[in-house]
Amino acid sequence: MARFEVAKARALARLQRSGADEGIAGILQKINARADYYTTSSCSGRIALILLPEIGAKREARFIGKWHRPVVSGEVLAVMVDAPFAEGELWLLAQPPIIHVACRSVAKAEALLRLALDAGFKYSGMKGIARATGIAVVEIFSTERMDVPVASRDAVLVDEAYMGFIVTKANFLLHRGTEKLKRFELQLNKLP
Amino acid sequence: MARFEVAKARALARLQRSGADEGIAGILQKINARADYYTTSSCSGRIALILLPEIGAKREARFIGKWHRPVVSGEVLAVMVDAPFAEGELWLLAQPPIIHVACRSVAKAEALLRLALDAGFKYSGMKGIARATGIAVVEIFSTERMDVPVASRDAVLVDEAYMGFIVTKANFLLHRGTEKLKRFELQLNKLP
Repeated sequence: MARFEVAKARALARLQRSGADEGIAGILQKINARADYYTTSSCSGRIALILLPEIGAKREARFIGKWHRPVVSGEVLAVMVDAPFAEGELWLLAQPPIIHVACRSVAKAEALLRLALDAGFKYSGMKGIARATGIAVVEIFSTERMDVPVASRDAVLVDEAYMGFIVTKANFLLHRGTEKLKRFELQLNKLP
Repeated sequence: MARFEVAKARALARLQRSGADEGIAGILQKINARADYYTTSSCSGRIALILLPEIGAKREARFIGKWHRPVVSGEVLAVMVDAPFAEGELWLLAQPPIIHVACRSVAKAEALLRLALDAGFKYSGMKGIARATGIAVVEIFSTERMDVPVASRDAVLVDEAYMGFIVTKANFLLHRGTEKLKRFELQLNKLP
């Protein structure tokens, strides 16, 4: 087996063990059915509550709550109240879908990238090319996001009305991400 | 002159006409000094107030205010009050620096991409490769962002205290973007 096939078999075994988010599993299947591609990680989009230990250092963010479905503000507030934000900040995020795909060559990566950009995944790009194998990784990523600080150093910054508004907004962005995934799934029929 | 050189000369003439944001001009100069690269567009990072005519449709967003420097909440509020948001939404954004670079080949693009990722520009990627010329475009992009809804259909959603908080946060993110640009400028010495 060539190196690409070995890496693909390993990635598919991992996917089978860990499973994929509902709403993205069909796309992963479609990509993995092609000989020249395999998926390495994915998320169907999510709403998240993160704790930033130090001001603005998102790299060290810790997830306090994570939802791959619409939420109601009561459940987000319930998680917020229990969060240890005395020393940091809490942010409510809506994040778009993301998929990483390993491609046999730069040309194959380019073809996939075009489809993703056409389907509206505007932040997509090739992230790197392995020198030894020529395998290129494409990140499929989009713009449906919201990043709102909601609490800081023991003080909740937002009232219930505003919380309700941003939760509605987060649900809407999640929905938009899902719609975009459907568009991309159709585009995938054009993949060479 | 080869096609790459013609395109580069055109891009440099455009840059000279329109100028670049302060804080990014040195980096553009450094990239454009290399024979295999030229910049096509850039932004040093900004704080912006945008109007979304229809709910969530960021593509049709109109800029109401735009600052490439730290702001005080009074000036943002002053712009907000005059904005025609009866039919839409206003969002306050902090956006990271962005640079687009045309590269003579995929290998050259890959070298630049690695430097950008190493400097912390985590959302960087190759956006496309021209089939005829092999010229590849790298987008250098980062994560320092905030996207906060502040007004909707004639109602301001946030109070002054919260506005003060998110303005401080936006200024902080802008500063972080500037620091990252400095790191990248140093990395550029390693560009082959």
